[in-house]
Amino acid sequence: MSTHFEREIREQPQSLRRLLDEAEAEVSTAAQNIRAYAPKRVVIAARGSSDNAARYAQYLFGEGLGWTVALAAPSLVTVYGARLALEGSLVLGVSQSGQSPDIVAVLEEARRQGALTLAFTNAERSPLALAASHTIQLRAGEERAVAASKSYVAQLCALAMLCAELREDKKRKEELRRLPEHVTKALSTDLTAQAIAERWRPVQRIAVLGRGFNYASAFESALKLKETCYVFAEPYSTADFLHGPVAVVEPGTAVLLIAPKSKVFAEQDALLTLLNERRADVVAVTDDTTLGQRAASWLELPVGVPEWLSPVVSVVPAQLLALRSAKARGYDPDTPRGLNKVTKTR
Amino acid sequence: MSTHFEREIREQPQSLRRLLDEAEAEVSTAAQNIRAYAPKRVVIAARGSSDNAARYAQYLFGEGLGWTVALAAPSLVTVYGARLALEGSLVLGVSQSGQSPDIVAVLEEARRQGALTLAFTNAERSPLALAASHTIQLRAGEERAVAASKSYVAQLCALAMLCAELREDKKRKEELRRLPEHVTKALSTDLTAQAIAERWRPVQRIAVLGRGFNYASAFESALKLKETCYVFAEPYSTADFLHGPVAVVEPGTAVLLIAPKSKVFAEQDALLTLLNERRADVVAVTDDTTLGQRAASWLELPVGVPEWLSPVVSVVPAQLLALRSAKARGYDPDTPRGLNKVTKTR
Repeated sequence: MSTHFEREIREQPQSLRRLLDEAEAEVSTAAQNIRAYAPKRVVIAARGSSDNAARYAQYLFGEGLGWTVALAAPSLVTVYGARLALEGSLVLGVSQSGQSPDIVAVLEEARRQGALTLAFTNAERSPLALAASHTIQLRAGEERAVAASKSYVAQLCALAMLCAELREDKKRKEELRRLPEHVTKALSTDLTAQAIAERWRPVQRIAVLGRGFNYASAFESALKLKETCYVFAEPYSTADFLHGPVAVVEPGTAVLLIAPKSKVFAEQDALLTLLNERRADVVAVTDDTTLGQRAASWLELPVGVPEWLSPVVSVVPAQLLALRSAKARGYDPDTPRGLNKVTKTR
Repeated sequence: MSTHFEREIREQPQSLRRLLDEAEAEVSTAAQNIRAYAPKRVVIAARGSSDNAARYAQYLFGEGLGWTVALAAPSLVTVYGARLALEGSLVLGVSQSGQSPDIVAVLEEARRQGALTLAFTNAERSPLALAASHTIQLRAGEERAVAASKSYVAQLCALAMLCAELREDKKRKEELRRLPEHVTKALSTDLTAQAIAERWRPVQRIAVLGRGFNYASAFESALKLKETCYVFAEPYSTADFLHGPVAVVEPGTAVLLIAPKSKVFAEQDALLTLLNERRADVVAVTDDTTLGQRAASWLELPVGVPEWLSPVVSVVPAQLLALRSAKARGYDPDTPRGLNKVTKTR
């Protein structure tokens, strides 16, 4: 039986292709307005999977544009009634459904103060799209599984398109065009994901590690595993992990190590040595053969994906692992217990 | 056998008293300089427990001053060589030891760009103190346990002092003076913490929930449990928890719910109802009798702590729970396996 979650994971290459083909004008207009506005600061409001897209944006815009990005705690506005000083700011709202009232509230307050507001949403006429001065439509098509997949990679891709446009960076724009092809290749990890899902069937705790650009991938991968398999999958930056939580690792501890070739690769590689010494059970998500073969299992990423785009690709094997783990455990990944697709947090 | 961790937890009232008595001039000078500088944006660099102090600062400065605060990912500077635009920014570095090279690097880069830099550290002549234009000494005394306790509450208190000074808020300054007394009362949860530690001895997964100001408390409480007991203790904002991870709750799931009376209290209360319906095993950290009695166990907070300062107090029962859980499980809380006091992350 095919599930929405599986279909939506498999649709990702074509949904990315549509976004890349059709959103260029929106991205270009937004970039022109941002340049003209010259924001004093950049703030992102998001929750859930979209908050993980915001984590990616911190690295994307930090490395690519030198921006420091604040993740707005929506409750500051909606609960504490804080009058955030947003004048002169670029405020991005990221939400698949465009329905979260707290995210909408932050954008409305920002616009009231004359901030430049930009929505990334999958829903054209949603409250978020209506609240924002500009909208980039994600064009992922309706997402029916509660666990986000294609809308998440579309959010990353749209943020990356905006960054490349702001940099006026031809090379990066070309790299973007190859994303659907990379994601297609990453989907071929499905059989390996099935085998790992079987092996990890009794596992109830998974440490999920990534750093830098793929810090977001650790969070999003852990969220997928939690939503669909009810395991305690805890995400960490590799660096933070060494600052304390590494203490939880004992023989047999399940670790998902997201380590595509990157500027943090040497560190991830050293961490694998440490984890192997402690006899952890490490599944590596990597395009590096040596590292992949040193782990207990290897979810093989396609080679040649530039680091700044790697989170769009490296989350895919983790989505498949979540899907296959849910099936192996007898759960329906489309309807996690106790969750709704749109969570209306104030 | 008394441990450093236990002694340092018990020293917290006097260490806070010392900070409140002696740091006023430093705080006042820093506040004057910040006012004169009129920062365009505010950035914090921190890791580990100090990163949790930074999370508190996001709410503290957001609610109190309308600031949106960016948590700088130090790796942007040290790994990716990003030239972050920090000119015109207030950049805070928070580190107990003042030794983390990546935090120091962010402050050095900030200062080079003419930003106003401010260090919160326990170590007077540390590289961080030397790199910053201003330093607020935490005065917590030497901290020998690897798991931070007194330095963490001192960081929160010092940040709160700065916020009250910038607001020129007499009422809040008076509220600050009562912190040592509140923390003393919170220490009397020790016997209850011992009983819970016994009951939770077999527990390997704990969801730790808080929201708003106490989002930071959830992270710090979870970190203490991880560092000392090697459990998977996973922190969540209550709002994010409802966006997905709530799916992991099943009968018997251990939950530490940090819910002092606050503007998010009604929500925490409703969450307890949901958790009880699912027969989770909830330990509540609260000053509310009704909520406390509805939970499986109640770590009772002193009444009358204003919400903006509540994280300084509500972390204390969680520290004690970590201490007692370590002892109940036969671990030495002073020397978590695989951890060093100063982690030199690049």
